[in-house]
Amino acid sequence: MDSVILRNVRPMGEGMTSVAIRNGRIAAFGYEPGPEDTVIDGEGGILIPGLVEAHTHMDKTLLGMGWYRNDVGPRLIDKIENERRQRRILGIDPARQSARQAVLAASLGTTHIRTHVDVDTEVGLAGIEGVLETRERYKDVVEIELVAFPQSGMLIRPGTVELMEKALQLGAQVVGGLDPAAIDRDPKGHLDVVFGLADRYGVPVDIHLHETAELGAFSMELIIERTKALGLQGRVTVSHAFCLGMADQDYVAALIDALAEARIHILTTAPASRPAPAVKRLVEAGIVVAAGSDGVRDTWGPYNNPDMLERAFLVGLRNNLRRDDEVALALDTCTHGGARMMELDGYGLAPDCKADLVVLEGETLAEAVVSRRPRKLVMKGGKVTARDGAALVEAP
Amino acid sequence: MDSVILRNVRPMGEGMTSVAIRNGRIAAFGYEPGPEDTVIDGEGGILIPGLVEAHTHMDKTLLGMGWYRNDVGPRLIDKIENERRQRRILGIDPARQSARQAVLAASLGTTHIRTHVDVDTEVGLAGIEGVLETRERYKDVVEIELVAFPQSGMLIRPGTVELMEKALQLGAQVVGGLDPAAIDRDPKGHLDVVFGLADRYGVPVDIHLHETAELGAFSMELIIERTKALGLQGRVTVSHAFCLGMADQDYVAALIDALAEARIHILTTAPASRPAPAVKRLVEAGIVVAAGSDGVRDTWGPYNNPDMLERAFLVGLRNNLRRDDEVALALDTCTHGGARMMELDGYGLAPDCKADLVVLEGETLAEAVVSRRPRKLVMKGGKVTARDGAALVEAP
Repeated sequence: MDSVILRNVRPMGEGMTSVAIRNGRIAAFGYEPGPEDTVIDGEGGILIPGLVEAHTHMDKTLLGMGWYRNDVGPRLIDKIENERRQRRILGIDPARQSARQAVLAASLGTTHIRTHVDVDTEVGLAGIEGVLETRERYKDVVEIELVAFPQSGMLIRPGTVELMEKALQLGAQVVGGLDPAAIDRDPKGHLDVVFGLADRYGVPVDIHLHETAELGAFSMELIIERTKALGLQGRVTVSHAFCLGMADQDYVAALIDALAEARIHILTTAPASRPAPAVKRLVEAGIVVAAGSDGVRDTWGPYNNPDMLERAFLVGLRNNLRRDDEVALALDTCTHGGARMMELDGYGLAPDCKADLVVLEGETLAEAVVSRRPRKLVMKGGKVTARDGAALVEAP
Repeated sequence: MDSVILRNVRPMGEGMTSVAIRNGRIAAFGYEPGPEDTVIDGEGGILIPGLVEAHTHMDKTLLGMGWYRNDVGPRLIDKIENERRQRRILGIDPARQSARQAVLAASLGTTHIRTHVDVDTEVGLAGIEGVLETRERYKDVVEIELVAFPQSGMLIRPGTVELMEKALQLGAQVVGGLDPAAIDRDPKGHLDVVFGLADRYGVPVDIHLHETAELGAFSMELIIERTKALGLQGRVTVSHAFCLGMADQDYVAALIDALAEARIHILTTAPASRPAPAVKRLVEAGIVVAAGSDGVRDTWGPYNNPDMLERAFLVGLRNNLRRDDEVALALDTCTHGGARMMELDGYGLAPDCKADLVVLEGETLAEAVVSRRPRKLVMKGGKVTARDGAALVEAP
């Protein structure tokens, strides 16, 4: 039959079985290998589908560049301006840096990444071009989706909209937005441009909404209105969505209903120091919740790393998800939640799904999440890409 | 001279030097070894004083007992009652379990632990006796301080006060308390007993205050009043202190002033899902802030482990401490903050301090904290107790 047989694995921590893989897809479970099959021993590990990093910034990680001593000011604008400055001073090469993060992420079991790539009047399209190079180079290891992201503002920096459009023509698959009121000072104008591009290019939308409380909620209302008006249900993500952690619980309940109706997805990094969306409540309302690391070891802060098991741990801590079924829900934001947000085809552990697989060390699923040990095995399209925490491809 | 020389280390990430250790204490820095000295190579690692675990529950960790499938209810009382029940069902042996945590903590660089030990009318003093056994057995590896802790309530369970007193006579060094209003339903009565025991036995106080907002603030006022009335300034800790994360900022400011004046310490686990004390603000007000893991892998929840570098990481995340100097402050809660709270004598990196030392792998102090790699070397009283993440003593 000429299959790859992954033996001695426990899908989602359940009973031991084997998985037959053919043509890069899951062919069957419980299959006994024949003489022509290639057998890989999962050594009793837990089998999960590939981890999905649904929000990061691969173009500007400082991985491998020596420690960046952070003495940046406290405001959002301090961090944005410092980063633009450091890009020149440090010489952050988007192709090299995104490649480093791609390989590190693959070693940690990530098989799909949505990355936001800066587009502005200083960097132009260099970030997009660099990450496109990485997307092509590592396409057999990790699938990368690019968001054209106006990090420095869009309307306040003339020329940015044109660059955003060029980014989509070059190969960015998603149009991004950012704090339409707080940064661009024009919520209607900002969102009209973002949704206009989505409509014209037939691409999904992903808007970074750090605006808190009533201001963020207003921007969210504008996003919901445009999603419905343009028939973009299921294709719009609001990242961060701190406003869903606001005090006014009646307003939050109304927003959740409206988000669910418009099939808008929520992406969270599960920040410990900020109001944040309540993951379990959103999931129970039928909203797709995905998780991401945000910027990894960059000029913004030192804590994030691209380990999506650690992100599941942080989602669990932030949302007080203690029971085993709740820890599984936290992990789900880093697997199926991200996959649904990114509209991934053939994702999961069912027969005929793509063989994007991770074998975890752990007694139970919850134990694997909280322990975050090196991944025993990672497969992309049925081929082994990492073993015992080490990627089989090299980073620059 | 017959010294131990720890070479090639960078105290707190600063310049490379060597440390001479004699009679279990730091004798000098920058000392060149003679022929009779024993030389240990720190391989360029960062030298910090021993990590201080200032709040845990060693008597009831489930380490090494197989995964506990958590399906406990959401209320505090659900968790307390479930734990008492599981103690019988699972057969949690306080001596064995505290020994396991002691060895794991030592392997992670912890040299001092304050542990709260359950005292109630069911377990009696068995927890205290078990942890006292561990304290004695591992005294050359990690110093353990016991708090007699009425986890199931004190006044609501007649007989508990007498057991608390016996615990202090047996060797517990601190008197504990717990939510005087929410659990014992009698804030004045509860605190009068706790402070009465502290006064009579000349021991410090450590009160777990989960009560939120105005209720917790009221209990805190009662604690401050008793601390001053009995001259216990510098000897009282409020653990958790969620009320300091309340919305009423004027009230919080007044409480911080009063805590600083009464020299009351604050212990935080830096919970991501709850209101919590603002670490930097407290430190700037002159308050000693320590950090702890709380219960490790117990029936309460799966996330905590006794790695105090991970706790520093979580303190940093919870308090949005991003700059390098702020990450150092987060680590300080896990070193000097805990040491001051526990009134440790001879703690630190200065000459004549006890040689309780950890060598971390990392380019800078902040990088060591966020990376949390296995500890290169741990010393207690000048003797090596762990290398490359593995303790040199065995756990049961």
